[in-house]
Amino acid sequence: MADSWRPLLAALLFISGGTVAFPLGQTPGHTPGCGYESCHATKANFLNVHLVPHTHDDVGWLKTVDQYFYGDRNDIQHAGVQYILDSVVDQLLKNPDRRFIYVETAFFYRWWKQQSSSVQQTVKQLVNEGRLEFVNGGWCMSDEATTHYSAVIDQMTLGLRFLNETFGSCGRPRVAWHIDPFGHAREHASMFAQMGYDGLFFGRLDYQDRSQRMKEKEQELLWRASDSLTPPMADLFTGILPNGYNPPEGFCWDQLCDDPPIRDDPDLEDYNVDDVVKRFLAIALNQATVYKTNHIIMTMGSDFQYENANLWYKNLDKLIRYVNAQQANGSKVNVLYSTPSCYLQELHRANLTWPLKTDDFFPYADNAHDFWTGYFTSRPALKRYERISNSNFQTCNQLEVLGGPTSRKGPFGQGDAHTMRKAMAVAQHHDAVSGTEKQHVANDYARKLADGWQHCQVLVSNSLAALSGSTAKRIYCDNLNISVCPLTESSNKFSLNVYNPLARPVTWPVRLPVNGTAYSVSDAKGKSVDCKVFPVSRATQDVRRNRGLAVNELVFQVQAPPLGYSTYSVSLLQDGIPPASTQHTRTTAIQNKFLQVTFDPNTGLLSSLSNLETKQTIKLTQNFYWYNASDGHNAYSNQPSGAYIFRPNSSTPFIISKTAKTETVQTSVVQEVRQWFSPWVSQVVRLYSDSKSLELEWTVGPLPVDDNLGKEVITRLDTSIKTSEIFYTDSNGREVLQRRKDFRPTWNLKQSEPIAGNYYPINSRAFIKDDDDQLTVVTDRSQGGGSIQNGSLEIMLHRRLLHDDYRGVGEPLNEVSDIFPEGLVVRGRLLLSLDRPPVAADTHRPLAQQVVLQPLLTFTDGDVSPGTQLEFSGLQAALPPAVHLLTLTQWDQDSVLLRLEHQFQSWESKLHSQPVTVNLKKLFSTLDVLGVSELNLSANQWKDEVTRFDWVPQKEEKLQLKTIRDPSPWEVTLRPMEIRTFLLTVR
Amino acid sequence: MADSWRPLLAALLFISGGTVAFPLGQTPGHTPGCGYESCHATKANFLNVHLVPHTHDDVGWLKTVDQYFYGDRNDIQHAGVQYILDSVVDQLLKNPDRRFIYVETAFFYRWWKQQSSSVQQTVKQLVNEGRLEFVNGGWCMSDEATTHYSAVIDQMTLGLRFLNETFGSCGRPRVAWHIDPFGHAREHASMFAQMGYDGLFFGRLDYQDRSQRMKEKEQELLWRASDSLTPPMADLFTGILPNGYNPPEGFCWDQLCDDPPIRDDPDLEDYNVDDVVKRFLAIALNQATVYKTNHIIMTMGSDFQYENANLWYKNLDKLIRYVNAQQANGSKVNVLYSTPSCYLQELHRANLTWPLKTDDFFPYADNAHDFWTGYFTSRPALKRYERISNSNFQTCNQLEVLGGPTSRKGPFGQGDAHTMRKAMAVAQHHDAVSGTEKQHVANDYARKLADGWQHCQVLVSNSLAALSGSTAKRIYCDNLNISVCPLTESSNKFSLNVYNPLARPVTWPVRLPVNGTAYSVSDAKGKSVDCKVFPVSRATQDVRRNRGLAVNELVFQVQAPPLGYSTYSVSLLQDGIPPASTQHTRTTAIQNKFLQVTFDPNTGLLSSLSNLETKQTIKLTQNFYWYNASDGHNAYSNQPSGAYIFRPNSSTPFIISKTAKTETVQTSVVQEVRQWFSPWVSQVVRLYSDSKSLELEWTVGPLPVDDNLGKEVITRLDTSIKTSEIFYTDSNGREVLQRRKDFRPTWNLKQSEPIAGNYYPINSRAFIKDDDDQLTVVTDRSQGGGSIQNGSLEIMLHRRLLHDDYRGVGEPLNEVSDIFPEGLVVRGRLLLSLDRPPVAADTHRPLAQQVVLQPLLTFTDGDVSPGTQLEFSGLQAALPPAVHLLTLTQWDQDSVLLRLEHQFQSWESKLHSQPVTVNLKKLFSTLDVLGVSELNLSANQWKDEVTRFDWVPQKEEKLQLKTIRDPSPWEVTLRPMEIRTFLLTVR
Repeated sequence: MADSWRPLLAALLFISGGTVAFPLGQTPGHTPGCGYESCHATKANFLNVHLVPHTHDDVGWLKTVDQYFYGDRNDIQHAGVQYILDSVVDQLLKNPDRRFIYVETAFFYRWWKQQSSSVQQTVKQLVNEGRLEFVNGGWCMSDEATTHYSAVIDQMTLGLRFLNETFGSCGRPRVAWHIDPFGHAREHASMFAQMGYDGLFFGRLDYQDRSQRMKEKEQELLWRASDSLTPPMADLFTGILPNGYNPPEGFCWDQLCDDPPIRDDPDLEDYNVDDVVKRFLAIALNQATVYKTNHIIMTMGSDFQYENANLWYKNLDKLIRYVNAQQANGSKVNVLYSTPSCYLQELHRANLTWPLKTDDFFPYADNAHDFWTGYFTSRPALKRYERISNSNFQTCNQLEVLGGPTSRKGPFGQGDAHTMRKAMAVAQHHDAVSGTEKQHVANDYARKLADGWQHCQVLVSNSLAALSGSTAKRIYCDNLNISVCPLTESSNKFSLNVYNPLARPVTWPVRLPVNGTAYSVSDAKGKSVDCKVFPVSRATQDVRRNRGLAVNELVFQVQAPPLGYSTYSVSLLQDGIPPASTQHTRTTAIQNKFLQVTFDPNTGLLSSLSNLETKQTIKLTQNFYWYNASDGHNAYSNQPSGAYIFRPNSSTPFIISKTAKTETVQTSVVQEVRQWFSPWVSQVVRLYSDSKSLELEWTVGPLPVDDNLGKEVITRLDTSIKTSEIFYTDSNGREVLQRRKDFRPTWNLKQSEPIAGNYYPINSRAFIKDDDDQLTVVTDRSQGGGSIQNGSLEIMLHRRLLHDDYRGVGEPLNEVSDIFPEGLVVRGRLLLSLDRPPVAADTHRPLAQQVVLQPLLTFTDGDVSPGTQLEFSGLQAALPPAVHLLTLTQWDQDSVLLRLEHQFQSWESKLHSQPVTVNLKKLFSTLDVLGVSELNLSANQWKDEVTRFDWVPQKEEKLQLKTIRDPSPWEVTLRPMEIRTFLLTVR
Repeated sequence: MADSWRPLLAALLFISGGTVAFPLGQTPGHTPGCGYESCHATKANFLNVHLVPHTHDDVGWLKTVDQYFYGDRNDIQHAGVQYILDSVVDQLLKNPDRRFIYVETAFFYRWWKQQSSSVQQTVKQLVNEGRLEFVNGGWCMSDEATTHYSAVIDQMTLGLRFLNETFGSCGRPRVAWHIDPFGHAREHASMFAQMGYDGLFFGRLDYQDRSQRMKEKEQELLWRASDSLTPPMADLFTGILPNGYNPPEGFCWDQLCDDPPIRDDPDLEDYNVDDVVKRFLAIALNQATVYKTNHIIMTMGSDFQYENANLWYKNLDKLIRYVNAQQANGSKVNVLYSTPSCYLQELHRANLTWPLKTDDFFPYADNAHDFWTGYFTSRPALKRYERISNSNFQTCNQLEVLGGPTSRKGPFGQGDAHTMRKAMAVAQHHDAVSGTEKQHVANDYARKLADGWQHCQVLVSNSLAALSGSTAKRIYCDNLNISVCPLTESSNKFSLNVYNPLARPVTWPVRLPVNGTAYSVSDAKGKSVDCKVFPVSRATQDVRRNRGLAVNELVFQVQAPPLGYSTYSVSLLQDGIPPASTQHTRTTAIQNKFLQVTFDPNTGLLSSLSNLETKQTIKLTQNFYWYNASDGHNAYSNQPSGAYIFRPNSSTPFIISKTAKTETVQTSVVQEVRQWFSPWVSQVVRLYSDSKSLELEWTVGPLPVDDNLGKEVITRLDTSIKTSEIFYTDSNGREVLQRRKDFRPTWNLKQSEPIAGNYYPINSRAFIKDDDDQLTVVTDRSQGGGSIQNGSLEIMLHRRLLHDDYRGVGEPLNEVSDIFPEGLVVRGRLLLSLDRPPVAADTHRPLAQQVVLQPLLTFTDGDVSPGTQLEFSGLQAALPPAVHLLTLTQWDQDSVLLRLEHQFQSWESKLHSQPVTVNLKKLFSTLDVLGVSELNLSANQWKDEVTRFDWVPQKEEKLQLKTIRDPSPWEVTLRPMEIRTFLLTVR
C-alpha cells in the first residue's frame, strides 16, 4: 500500500561526487556477519573480560574539529583523527581477532571522503565482518544538559544516515555510547530508545551515585525514560562503565600514556609478563565484584587515542595471550577483544532482571565540591546563537521543501541547507553548545554556524522568490536584537516578509531600528497595522557599540500563517523630529488584556504578577545577583569555578542593586518598563498587547573583574508560591522532571554544595507551583537554575571567571571579543506565564515552541513588485494544538522527511494530553504526498523492522507492548510525547 | 690458494636458534636492486631536494637501551623503537617510492628476532629493493671523543656482521652516519674509510666552522684522516648536514612535532597547500646557496621519530606531490624520497673537486660560551670501567680461541663472550661512555658490562682449565684497585694466574690486599720473587668503605708471556704483627734505574723528573685544582657547566692545597710517596723497580658541594718544557694530533672560552715537548685536557655539577651511589714518561697498550694441583715491537678473526715507523692456520672486493693508489698505522 514504493527509494548522494548509495538498511550481496553475529565466543564458567578498543574524539574542544581531524595545532593537544583512522584500519587488518569501535561520524565522514576506493572497500569488509563497529554513530556525541531535542535528533540523523548509506545495516550502531557527557538527560535516553538502540553506556555519574550502585551491583540498569510513552517505548538498558571511559590503571598502552609495555623477551631487561598478568587478574576479579554477570567490560582507550594503534594492539594481543595462557594453570578468567554490543549481548543472554530508574543523572559531581553545573550556563551568547541557528536551520529545511528545486539553485545562486546541517550537528557536541571549549574553538563553532546560515540565506531567498514570484533582493538583519539593520535604518519604504516555521499561525512583535519618527505599516491585505516609534534604549545603544545608527525603534505586531509567510509594507511618514520622550517617573503597573504586572514604587522592582483571565495573582519580586566564583583557595577544596564547574565561594549571592532606575514606555502596541541596576545589568519588562506572557529582556555585561573576583550572575524570582522545596525543569526541551532541594530520587544524598548541588539544566522552561499557581519561565537558550528558597526560582544568566577548573580546557571562562574587549555583553529573554497548574502547559508548550522556532524576517527595499504573492502557507490547515511539526526536510529528490510530535506530556493538560490524529495526505497545501513509510526516530531503519532487546525490570511483570494501529496508512495517531518519523514521497 | 676455502666459510649463527646465515656478501638468488641502483631518478637542470626519512635512536640516553626498545618509561621520554620499526615497515609497503634508513643495529637486532618469518621476508624484500637501507650499521653510533678505537671497531663489526648475515650485500651500509656525536675524531674517519664507506655525514660542528664553511660552500669536503696511511686509504668524503639532523623549520611531521600538517581538503578549514609549497621552496632555494651542487639533502626525522611513520609519510607524499606539481608552472625544484647514499651518489656524479681537511672537528661549540668539552671527562668511573671491561673482553675473546670449544662449555658451565660483546658495543654509544646519559642509564651500562663479565668469567675459567689442566676453582678479584679481595685477605696459601693479552711479554706490578705481614712468592719455575708488605693507605681505606678487611698490601712484580699466562704461588709467612710503619718525614726523591723524581721538601709536591738513561731532567711541579663550574648566572651567557658542557666561571682554577702532607714507602719492589691534599684529594706517586714510567695514582672525591659550587677537578703538570702553546693528544687511542692554543687549523678562531675552548679529548695519551724533552702522560681512561700555559699540561679528573646544561639530559652531573651517598670517589692512574722526542713513542706506544690491555689476574686457593701447566703462551714468539695484536676472536666454528696493527705513526719512531712483516702461519703456538683471507676493517667485505668512490681534493693531483703486495699469502706486511683484518681457518 502506502510503502509499495519503498524499493524504489534511492538515497540522496550524501557526499557530492561521492559514494554509492544503498536503500535503507540494505547492503547488496552482503551475508550478515557483523553486529551480534560477529562477537567472539565467551566461556560459560569463566569471568569473561571484554576488552573494547576505542578512541574518544571530541568534535572540537581544545582545538577545532578540523584541527583535530588533521592533527593541526598539536602544540595545544596532540590529536589527529585522520591518523587514528588510518592506523586503526591498518592494525585491524593484522589480526582478525582485533576489534575497534568508532563513534563520531563528523570525523569518520571527513576521513572517508579522502580515502581511495580500495581503502573504502577494505573498510567495508572490516565493517561487514564486525571488526570495525560503529557505536552511537551520530555526527557527534551530543551534550545532554544544554542541547535541544530537535537539534539532537537532527545530528543523530545526519551521522546515522551517512553510516547507513555507506555501509548498510552493518553500519547501523546497536549501542548508544555517551561516555563523556557530564551528566545524562532522561530525554536523551528516551530518544536513544526510539532510535532503536539496544542499550546505552556512559562513563560519568555522581560519585555518590556510583558508590551506591557499586555496593548494590546496580551499575547496570533499565532506564524508563518517559512518563508518557508506553513502556518499553522509552526503556533503555543503561550500563555504567567501570573506569569512566579509560583503561584500568596501569593498562594504558597508547602513545599518550606512560604505562609499561609488555616486555616479553626474556633476553632483554625487565621481563614483566608475570607482573602484568598478576596485576590484570587482580583488577578483573575486583571489577567483577561490583557487576552482576560473569562478564565485565574494560574500555581500552581514551581521548584521541589509537593515533598509533599498533602500540595498543601489540600489547593487547600479548595481554590476551598471556592472561588466557593462565587458564592452563587453572585460571578462570577469559579475556577477549569485544565491542559494547557484544558485551551487551552477553548481558542480555544472562536473562536477569535489572533495577529500574525513572529520573535522570543530573547534576553530575565528581567530588564533594565539584559539581558540573556551571556549564549549564557557560557561554550564554554561544548557547543563544546555537538556538537561533536551529530556528533558522529548520526554516531553511522547510523552505527547501516548499520552494522546490529552485531553492537549491535559483535566482540568488546555489544555496544549501547541508552546510548549516553539519554546522548545527557539530554544535551539539558536548564541548560545543555546552560552552566548555577553548575560546578559539567557540569562535569556530560560531563561524561555522554563520557560514551555514550564509548558505541557507541563498536557499531561503531562492525559495521565497519561488513562492512569492518576486526576485527582489532579500536582506537579512541578524542583529535586530541590538537594533541594528542598515536597511530599516535608512530606507523610506521597505517590505518585511515574516516566515513562520510553526504549523500554526503566530502573532509576533517586530522591533525595527529606524531613524524616522512616524511610519505607516500595512499587512498583506493592505490593512493598516498599529505601530509605534520610540527611542532605542540606552542599554541597547551601549551594547551595539556603534554598529548601528538608529535612534528609534519601530514596533508592531505581525501575524504569519502555518509554515508560511506574510508580507508587511513599511513607509516613513515623518522624519527628523525626535519622538515623544519616555516617561521617567516610576510606573506602578503595566498591563494588557491577559496580564498585569505591578512594580514597587520605592525600588522599581517587580512586585506582583496577575493573570487577568484566571484572576490569580502572585507576589513576585525579581532582581539580579552574583555569586562570587571560588578561586580555588578554600578550606574544603581547591576547586575553582570554571567552564564546567559552578562553585560559589559563598551560598549568599551579592545583590547588584536593591533598587532599579526605571523609565517607562506605554503604547497601544507594547508597554515596557526599562530598569537599570548597574552599568552592567539592565532589563526591560515588556508586555505586548496580544501576549499571554511577560517578557523580561535582560542585558548583562561586561561583568567587571577589576576586583579579581569571578562572577556568576543570576536573576532570581521570589514569589508567594508555596513550593515545598520542589521545582520543575524540562529535559532537552521536552518532558518536565520534578526537582527537589537537597534530594536525589535514587540515593540518600549527602549535600556538600548548597547552591551548585541544587542546580539543574533548564533547556526551554522551568516552573514552580503550588495547588493554585504555576509560574512558568520559558528561556531563549539553555541555562542553569535552581530553587534554593521556598517560592523562589533563580536562573544563571552569565558567568565570567578568572580561573580554569582543572577539567582540561585550560582557560578561565573569561569571554572577551573584538567588539567587547572589556568583557562580553549578553542579552536574552525570559518569558513568564502565570496559570492554574492543570492548564499551565496549554500556555507554556506553544509558547516555548514559538521561542524555539521563531519567525524569520526578511526585508526588501522599496515597493513590493506587482504580482508578488504576499501571503503563503505550506499547510492546508494549522495542525491541532497538541501537534508540533518537528521536522520537514528534503531527503532526496522525490522524498521528504517529516516528523510530527505530540508536544504534551500525558499528565499535563486535560485538553491536549490526548491522542490526536493527523491525515498526512491532507497536510500540505502545495505538495502531493504519494507515499508514506514510517521510520524510527533517527530515520535509519524502517519502523516495522525495528527489533530491540527486551529487558525485564526488577519488581515488575514483563510488559507486553500493545500495538496500537493507526486509523489508516495516511492517518497517523500521535499519543502524548510521541514523535513519529515519516518518509514521504512527494510531488 | 690461501682463500680457496672461502666458499666453504659458513658464518656463525648469529642469533641463537636464529637466521639462515649467508657467506659474506652474498645473498642467494638475489638480483641486486638495492644501494645505488635503487635510487630515484633526479632531474638534470633542477635543484633536486633529497628527502631522507630517518630516525635517530640513541642506544641509551634518558632511558636504557631496552627501555627505548620497548617504549618503557615513556614518562621520561616518549620513545619506543619496536614501534618505530613496526610502523616504518608498514608504511614503506604503502608506497614503493618511500625510503627509510636505519642506523642502530643494537635496536634492529632486538626487533628482528621478535618478528615472524613472514615479516622478516617482507623486510628482506624492502632491503633488496633499496626501500629500507641501512646506514652506518654498527651496533650503535659511537661516541668520537671518549671511545678507544679497539672497542669502536668491535662494535661496528658486531653490527655490520648482523646486517651482512641477515641481508647479504644489500644490507651493507655504504655511508657512515654520525649525525649526533658532539665533535668528530679524525681516527673515526680513518676507520670508516678502512671499513669501506663511501662517505660520512654528520650534523654537529663548531658554529664558527659551519658559518665559514657555509660562506665558502665547504660543507662538503674530503677528509684525509691519517698522516701515516697512504691516500686514499684514509680519505673519507664528508658531508655536513644542513639542519643538524632535523628537518627544516616548519616541516617536522612526526608525532613528536607540532608543525601544521598539509591540509589539502578544500572543504575543510585552513587549506594550506599554497603556503606549505611556498615555504618549502624558499627553504630549498636558500639551502642551495650554501652547497656546491644542484642536489641538496634534507633530513626528515629526528630523535626517536617515526614511531607513527604514517604522519611523516602521509605529509611527505603530499609535499612531494604539491611541490613537484609546481614544475608545471615553471618551478625548477624537484623533490624526491632519497637516502644518504643516493644523495652521495649524485655528489659523486657531479665530478667536482672538494676541499681537503686533515685535522679534526674538536672541540665542538654550538655557541660562544657553549663548548662541549665537559663530557671528555664526565663520569670518570664509568669511563674507566668501560676501558677495563674492554681489556677483560679482549682477554675473553682470546681465551675462547686459545682454550678451544671447552671455553664455551666446560667444567665451570656455559660461558660466552657474546654477552660482553654486546655490552661493550652498547657502551660505545655517544651517550654511554661519553658520560652524558642519565644516572640510571649509566648504572645500566655498568650493569650490562658486569653481566657480560660474569659470562666471560665462566669462559675464562673453562679456557684456563683447558690450557692448564687444572679445574681448581678460579676466583676473580675485580676490586684490587681499592685493595679488596676476600681470598687474598684470608688465605694462607693461594696461587695467582696472570694472563697477558698482549702479543709481547709484560712485567706487571701486583698489589694484593692481605692481613699477614710477610709472604713468600714464587714464580712458575718455583723461583722466589721479591715481595713486600706494607700498610694499606688511609686513602684506600677511605675509598673501600668497609668492603675489605685487609690492613696490608703485598706487592711484587710478575711477568707473563705473549698471549699467555704465568702462575705465581703465594704463602703466608708471618701473621698478626703489623708491618714496619711508613716514613712520615718528607722525602726529597725516589728513583729506580730509569727515573728519578724529586719533591719540594717545603710543599711535598713533585719538583723534577729525570730520565737517568738519557740524562734529561725537567722541572715538574704537579698539583690539583678545581674550576668553579658556571651555574648559568653570568653576564655573557646563561650556560652552566653540565654533563656535556664545560664552562668554568673563571679561567683561574682554585688550588686545593698549596702543600701536601706526605708519607713515603721505600722498598726494593716499589717506592711511593703518598700525598694528601685535602680530605677529598690524595695521590700516590709511585715508582716500581722495573718501570720506565712514573705512576701518579690519584684519588678524588667526594667533591664537596656544601658551598653550592659545582667543581671540575684537574691536575696540572707545570714543567720547564718550552711548548710554544702547542700540545698533543691522541685520537681514539691511535694517531696523535697537534693542538695549539686559541687556534684552529681551518679557520680564524674567535676564542670566547679561554679554558673550555682549549680542551681536547685525551683517549690514551697527551704530551708536551720541545726540542729536547717530551713529557708524555698515558691515561687509564678518556679524559679532557689542555695546555693553557707554556710548559703546562692539565687533565680534568672528576666533575661534580649542580646544574643541567640544557642539552636534554635533564639532570645535573652529580654522581652519588649507595656506597658513596655523599658523592662518588674516583681513583685512577696517570703514567708519566720523559724521553727525547724522537724516541718518545718507543716508550709511550707499548706503555699505552699495556694500560689498555692489562693482565687479568685469577686466583685459586691452596696449593696448585700437581700436573698443572703453570705457564703458557698462545704465540710461537712475541710479535715485533711495532705490531699490536688488536683482535683475536672466534668467528665461527672453524675460523677466527685476527687483526694485526702497526702501532706507530709514520713519523714518530726512527726504529719502529717502518714496514714490518708477520708470518701468519707461524703465529700461533697451538692453532694450525689452514687458510687466510683478508677482510676490510669491519670484517663485512672481502678486502679484494672493496670498491669505494674516488674523490678528488682541490689543489691536488688525483692519486693513484700503489698496490703493495705482501711477500706471500702467509706473510703480511704492516705499514705505519695500518690495521689488517684476517679471517683464518684454524684447527
